[in-house]
Amino acid sequence: MALRVGVIGGGQLARMMIAPAVELGIDIRVLAEDEGMSAQLAATAVGDYRDLDTVRRFAADVDVITFDHEHVPQEVLRALVADGVAVHPGPDALRFAQDKLDMRARLADLGAPQPDWARVADAVELQIFLDAHGGRGVVKTPRGGYDGKGVRVVSAAEEAADWFSALAAGDALLVEELVPFVRELAQQVARRPNGESVSYPVVETVQKGGVCAEVIAPAPGVDAEHLAEAARIGREIAEGLGVTGMLAVELFQTEDGRILVNELAMRPHNSGHWSQDGAVTGQFEQHLRAVADLPLGETTPHEAWSVMINILGGPADAGMLDRVPAALAASPQAKVHTYGKAPRPGRKVGHVNASGSDLDAVLAEARAAAAAFA
Amino acid sequence: MALRVGVIGGGQLARMMIAPAVELGIDIRVLAEDEGMSAQLAATAVGDYRDLDTVRRFAADVDVITFDHEHVPQEVLRALVADGVAVHPGPDALRFAQDKLDMRARLADLGAPQPDWARVADAVELQIFLDAHGGRGVVKTPRGGYDGKGVRVVSAAEEAADWFSALAAGDALLVEELVPFVRELAQQVARRPNGESVSYPVVETVQKGGVCAEVIAPAPGVDAEHLAEAARIGREIAEGLGVTGMLAVELFQTEDGRILVNELAMRPHNSGHWSQDGAVTGQFEQHLRAVADLPLGETTPHEAWSVMINILGGPADAGMLDRVPAALAASPQAKVHTYGKAPRPGRKVGHVNASGSDLDAVLAEARAAAAAFA
Repeated sequence: MALRVGVIGGGQLARMMIAPAVELGIDIRVLAEDEGMSAQLAATAVGDYRDLDTVRRFAADVDVITFDHEHVPQEVLRALVADGVAVHPGPDALRFAQDKLDMRARLADLGAPQPDWARVADAVELQIFLDAHGGRGVVKTPRGGYDGKGVRVVSAAEEAADWFSALAAGDALLVEELVPFVRELAQQVARRPNGESVSYPVVETVQKGGVCAEVIAPAPGVDAEHLAEAARIGREIAEGLGVTGMLAVELFQTEDGRILVNELAMRPHNSGHWSQDGAVTGQFEQHLRAVADLPLGETTPHEAWSVMINILGGPADAGMLDRVPAALAASPQAKVHTYGKAPRPGRKVGHVNASGSDLDAVLAEARAAAAAFA
Repeated sequence: MALRVGVIGGGQLARMMIAPAVELGIDIRVLAEDEGMSAQLAATAVGDYRDLDTVRRFAADVDVITFDHEHVPQEVLRALVADGVAVHPGPDALRFAQDKLDMRARLADLGAPQPDWARVADAVELQIFLDAHGGRGVVKTPRGGYDGKGVRVVSAAEEAADWFSALAAGDALLVEELVPFVRELAQQVARRPNGESVSYPVVETVQKGGVCAEVIAPAPGVDAEHLAEAARIGREIAEGLGVTGMLAVELFQTEDGRILVNELAMRPHNSGHWSQDGAVTGQFEQHLRAVADLPLGETTPHEAWSVMINILGGPADAGMLDRVPAALAASPQAKVHTYGKAPRPGRKVGHVNASGSDLDAVLAEARAAAAAFA
C-alpha cells in the first residue's frame, strides 16, 4: 500500500510532481480541470475544484491533499479539514497566498520587511497614498492575479477607477510603493507539518513582461549576509504563516541593499524549477516529502551555477515535436522539461535547466537550448 | 502530438522510464505482463509479450517500440519490423542478448576480449574444456538466465548432467573459463539509430549471491588507460552488434589487468542506476533519447563519486510505507527509488543513490539509507 497524495489542479506543477512521486513510491492522483491537461498521466478525476462534492469525492481516496495552484476556495478547504482530510498547505496558510491584503497585514504582524502598502477602498484613499509616495504606486487586486495580471503601476488614482467600480461592497484594493529595486530574488523554503524546514539558496529571477523569464541560482553576487537574510525571511514566513509544502518568497533587492517581500506562492514555483536538475533534492520531490510529512532532502546545488529559462510557446502551427530534438541538439547538457501544452505565443510550455561551474557558459547552454523553441 | 514510445514489459526498468518521458514530453505506453506491475502508471495494455497479436495491437499505436527486458521472441520482433514498426534495439541486435552462445561467437568475430569459451553439446565436450582449463569452468544455459540463474560453476561434467538432458536436439550449453578476476566492472553506452553514441564512465559492481548489490561510479582506482579501454570495448560492441538504446557491458578485471566481457544487456541496467541522480543525463532518459532517435545527452557525473545500493525486500509482512521515511531520515542526501513491488526476502524492490566528493562518506550515506529497508 503506497501513500496516496491527491493534487488539486492538473497543470504543469502537478505534472512535475509525477516523476518524483513514481521514484518515491507515492501514489499520485490528480483532480484535473479538464481532459488532456499537463498532468493527464496521473489524472484520476476531472472536475471543478470549486465544487465541494467534486473535491470531497476526490479527497476520499487519498491520504493527503495538496495543490497545483492556490485557487481552491476557503470554504472547500475548510470542509475538507472538517472531514478529517490532511490538507497541505492548509486553509489557514493558503488564505495569505489567496488574498494579498491579508498577506500584507500578516507580514506586518510578523515584522517581515516589505514595501509600504495600504488598503484602499476608493480613489481618494489611493490618491492619498500616491501623494505620500512620490505620486506613483502599484495597485493590485487582492485576489486572482498571477503573472502580472491584476497588477498595475499608476500615477493617478483614476487609473484604477475600473477596478474600484468593480469592487464588491466592503472590499478594497492593495496599493504598494513602487520599490526602487535593482533586481528581483526568490527564496524557496520547504516545511513539514512537524515544523522541520529546509531552505534553498536565494535565486535571481529575471522578469520579462511580468512573466518570469530566467532564473539564476544562486543569485549572482549575493553576499553571505543577504543569503542568510533571505533564508531567514523565508523560514520566518513559512513558520509564521504555518506553510506546509514548498513556499516561494519573491523578493525585491533595493538600491540601498534592503530585501523586501514582494509576493508569496505556497507551492512549487517557477523560480525553483532549477532545483529539479541543479540540486540534490528538486522542489517537486521536496514538496511531496513536505506535504506527506516525510523527512526533507538536502538542498545543496550540484554545481556552482544553475540556470532556468522558460520556454514560451512560439507559433501555434508548429508543435513541440520538432523543437525538442532541436533543443537537445543545441545543448547536450541542458535538461528540457515540457508541460504537454500546445504552443501559442507567450504561453509557458516548458523550461530548460542547465548547470556548471562557469555562469556565462551555463547561460549560453541554456539559452541555446531555449532558442530552439522560439 | 507527442512522440509515442511503447515499452514491452512492465517491470522497474519501464517504471523508471516514466519520469524522464514525462519531462521530455514523450507519451510513454507500457505493455505490462499483468495488472499492478511496477510500471502500472503508464500501462496502456496488459498481455503476453510472446503473443504476436497482442504485441502487434500494442505496437499499432506507438512510434517506437523498446523493452523492459530482452525476452520478446525473435519471431515477434521480426514480424514487427516487417510491419514497419521502429523496434529499438532491433531483433538483429537483441539476438546477441538473448543467446549467450550467439553473443560469444559474435564477440569473437569482433575481436572483443572475452574469457575462453566453448559450445558444448554433451558431457564429453564439456569435460574436454574443463580438462583444458584447470578442471573447472562456468556452464551457462544460453537462454533465459538472469541474476545468477542458469549459471553454474562446475568441476566435473556430470554436474551439468541435468541441463544436458533437458537440451532440445541440436542445442548446446556454453562453457566459459573461470576467470581469475579481481573485480567486476560495467560499461554503459547509449547509441542512436544514426550511429551517434555516448559512454558513461566505467563502474565497479559488487555482486552478492549472483545479484548486483552495490555500484561505485566511476570504478575506484581505474586508470585512464582502463577507463578508455572499457569505453572503447563498449562502443565497439554497440557498433558491431548494431545496438540502439542503452547497452550495458558487464566486465571482469583480471589479476593481470585485462578486461574481459562477461555479459551484455541491451536496456537500462542495474549497473547504470547511479546515473539517474549522479550524471547530467540518467540512463533512463538516455535510453528514451536513443530509441526515439533524439540527440543524446551529456554523461558527465555531478560529483567525484556516486554509489548505488540495491534494496532487497525484507520480511513480506512489513510494507514499504514505513521504510521509505526511515531511509529518507537516515540520509537527507540519498535518493530513494522504489519499484512498486511488495517486499519479500531477496527481491529487488528499489535502490538508493548517493553522490559526493568523498567515497567513504558517500558509501556511508547510501548504506545508511539502504539499511532502513533491511
